[in-house]
Amino acid sequence: MKAALVSIGDEIVSGLTVDTNAAWLADRLREVGADPVGTLSAPDDPEAITRALRRGMEDAGTVITTGGLGPTADDLTTALVAQVAGTGLTLNQEELARIEARFRERGRPMPLSNRKQAMLPEGAEVIPNPLGTAPGFRIEVRTEAGPRHLICLPGVPGEMRAMAEATVLPWAASHANGARFLSRTFSVFGLPESELGERLEGVADALEGRLAFRAAFPRIQARITLHGRDADRLEQRMQSLTTEVRARLGHHLYAEADEGLEETVGRLLGERGVTVAVAESCTGGLIGHRITEVPGSSRYFLLGAVTYSNEAKRSVLGVRREVLRRYGAVSTETAEAMAEGVRRVAGADVGVATTGIAGPGGGSPSKPVGTVCVALAWSGGAWSKRYELGTRDRGWIKEVTAQIALDRLRRWMLDSDEL
Amino acid sequence: MKAALVSIGDEIVSGLTVDTNAAWLADRLREVGADPVGTLSAPDDPEAITRALRRGMEDAGTVITTGGLGPTADDLTTALVAQVAGTGLTLNQEELARIEARFRERGRPMPLSNRKQAMLPEGAEVIPNPLGTAPGFRIEVRTEAGPRHLICLPGVPGEMRAMAEATVLPWAASHANGARFLSRTFSVFGLPESELGERLEGVADALEGRLAFRAAFPRIQARITLHGRDADRLEQRMQSLTTEVRARLGHHLYAEADEGLEETVGRLLGERGVTVAVAESCTGGLIGHRITEVPGSSRYFLLGAVTYSNEAKRSVLGVRREVLRRYGAVSTETAEAMAEGVRRVAGADVGVATTGIAGPGGGSPSKPVGTVCVALAWSGGAWSKRYELGTRDRGWIKEVTAQIALDRLRRWMLDSDEL
Repeated sequence: MKAALVSIGDEIVSGLTVDTNAAWLADRLREVGADPVGTLSAPDDPEAITRALRRGMEDAGTVITTGGLGPTADDLTTALVAQVAGTGLTLNQEELARIEARFRERGRPMPLSNRKQAMLPEGAEVIPNPLGTAPGFRIEVRTEAGPRHLICLPGVPGEMRAMAEATVLPWAASHANGARFLSRTFSVFGLPESELGERLEGVADALEGRLAFRAAFPRIQARITLHGRDADRLEQRMQSLTTEVRARLGHHLYAEADEGLEETVGRLLGERGVTVAVAESCTGGLIGHRITEVPGSSRYFLLGAVTYSNEAKRSVLGVRREVLRRYGAVSTETAEAMAEGVRRVAGADVGVATTGIAGPGGGSPSKPVGTVCVALAWSGGAWSKRYELGTRDRGWIKEVTAQIALDRLRRWMLDSDEL
Repeated sequence: MKAALVSIGDEIVSGLTVDTNAAWLADRLREVGADPVGTLSAPDDPEAITRALRRGMEDAGTVITTGGLGPTADDLTTALVAQVAGTGLTLNQEELARIEARFRERGRPMPLSNRKQAMLPEGAEVIPNPLGTAPGFRIEVRTEAGPRHLICLPGVPGEMRAMAEATVLPWAASHANGARFLSRTFSVFGLPESELGERLEGVADALEGRLAFRAAFPRIQARITLHGRDADRLEQRMQSLTTEVRARLGHHLYAEADEGLEETVGRLLGERGVTVAVAESCTGGLIGHRITEVPGSSRYFLLGAVTYSNEAKRSVLGVRREVLRRYGAVSTETAEAMAEGVRRVAGADVGVATTGIAGPGGGSPSKPVGTVCVALAWSGGAWSKRYELGTRDRGWIKEVTAQIALDRLRRWMLDSDEL
């Protein structure tokens, strides 16, 4: 099943809004076995929208539009789709009642303009909107090249996604020749995308599935999608592929799901009842911020200390003046002293520390911008390492350093040999 | 000047990558007075790319493509553009020398495949790429509907943007009927987008310019773009509009530029030689992270303390047990004690503190999720306030609380009456 996507709205065409709907839909359509062939955008202009609809129908048997279903005069999608389908608009009483009820529940009268949202093309099938007023719909259109399905969804991402998940994607899956699809995402740290690709080369047979990569810095992910007709066999096959992926990626694989290191680490800390404290210099609070993005992190996160100045490293963490003088603020020695210090002050099981030069200033020949040290300290031991991350921008160096620290904490929790 | 945008690449069409290039180009084209009419995407497939190029040329006099200029076999843009233009490819010796030099500088031999990137359509004008190997180019194509300009840029956002800024946008501006454009962005905190729109209604005459809004949470911005022929008059007019915008927005206007509060605050702290320390509970390190995103922040940021536990509030910040017991961890009293404590420990001029319930757990009838307290403390004074932000997700509550704290710090620096 081929699908063309049409994104409608001035805000998309003018660049005020980045079109995330098309990418999300394309990604999910592929997962259920459909084949997105391209995206067309059109401003809130009848001629442009009609042209985009016609082009979409040239390109694919199914056209999915997002946007232009609102109550105002510049929302034109429904009327133009009816025109293209050669039909009229008719009031859908059920949808009108639902929209009125929605307003009533909020104690407000329904503005007359919202009545327009219940006017749907004759013969269209409603796609319920559980989150907003605008219903979506699907209508079949006859063209010289054969029948076409037009599916119209609102542009608000939350509503669009909920409606696609509940109605459109199951419909698309059922039109994918009875094939079933099973996907798993593998989240990875410490491998560039190209090397990840090499390591996973040939892991799944092209005939049975698809391997895709996504690098949304600082997350790198591989996703395997298998297709077949027997759900049990797909599940078995995914299990054996997962074993293979584990073997190929080793400690670089941190989660068999689409999740951030802070979630993986949080789960490990929570499960094992281990508490953590963090001393940050160059990461400036980013590690604490990430750890505390996870609900329930107050159970295991006791203290974060952002000790930018040497004075703060001494007075708050008890790093000895001699260590700072002898090795400098950016050194594995200072990082270990910071990790041990924050652990002691917080009474935590493990301390994590970062210190480094995020730039653009502050570099020297022996410690150029991008030099960072990461350390862990626990009862009876410590670990530290110096990295040269190169002269990238400040934000990048902070992100990568935080990622290294969280990953080392994860590996320590797992008693990894490679820590 | 009308421009159609064509985004090329499997990763765009399949949804693995969100197409930010089109939105960025459309936005910048509008700023220089050009008129983006829509975006078309095409996978790495000759037929689809050719169709998208032809459609773009139907829609607009200028077509700007991004993507498909790489060295590998699936990068097809250049060859297909030459075909559409009815011309052949020719080796550009200068570009070949530049690409070879780029590899030489990095101590690596140039792979033969990169030679392809110096093969350009005959008659094309090179658009230099200061950041990568792939040059862009512009070529004129005759069509039945008149001449068309095809402009091809790489898909890597950093390279594309640099090349557009240096070459394409000045060219587009010069083709905008001799009109000049002048833009200014106003960054705002504490007004919903709808109220911002109401406050600025009619500020600029529709005949002289355009007012646009952008809400990229947590930043809200208004941008005025004026057009005319006389640069001096535009500058004068922008000055008088800026005065008007200041009067209408009051303290909600935090910068007359596209910048974050951390940059505004950082500039104020740096200019005035004021040092700051931050004690964070519910924001978890986010304020420190944002402050330290700004280069040179080590001059004024002395210490951040993420004191999630009561124990840490006591031992690190010296918050008295009695304050915690009597008012609770989430209270203006505790927030003030945290601000004063971190200021004292760090020896800073001003202390900032946050404490609150980011959820989803931890709420109570008297202090529901979304209850947050923000405080400032300085030599001889303190300020604090309790906010009810409502039950949104954890990340949202953290972001808004950090934004409130940075904004209050800004207003304190300005001796605002409303602090």
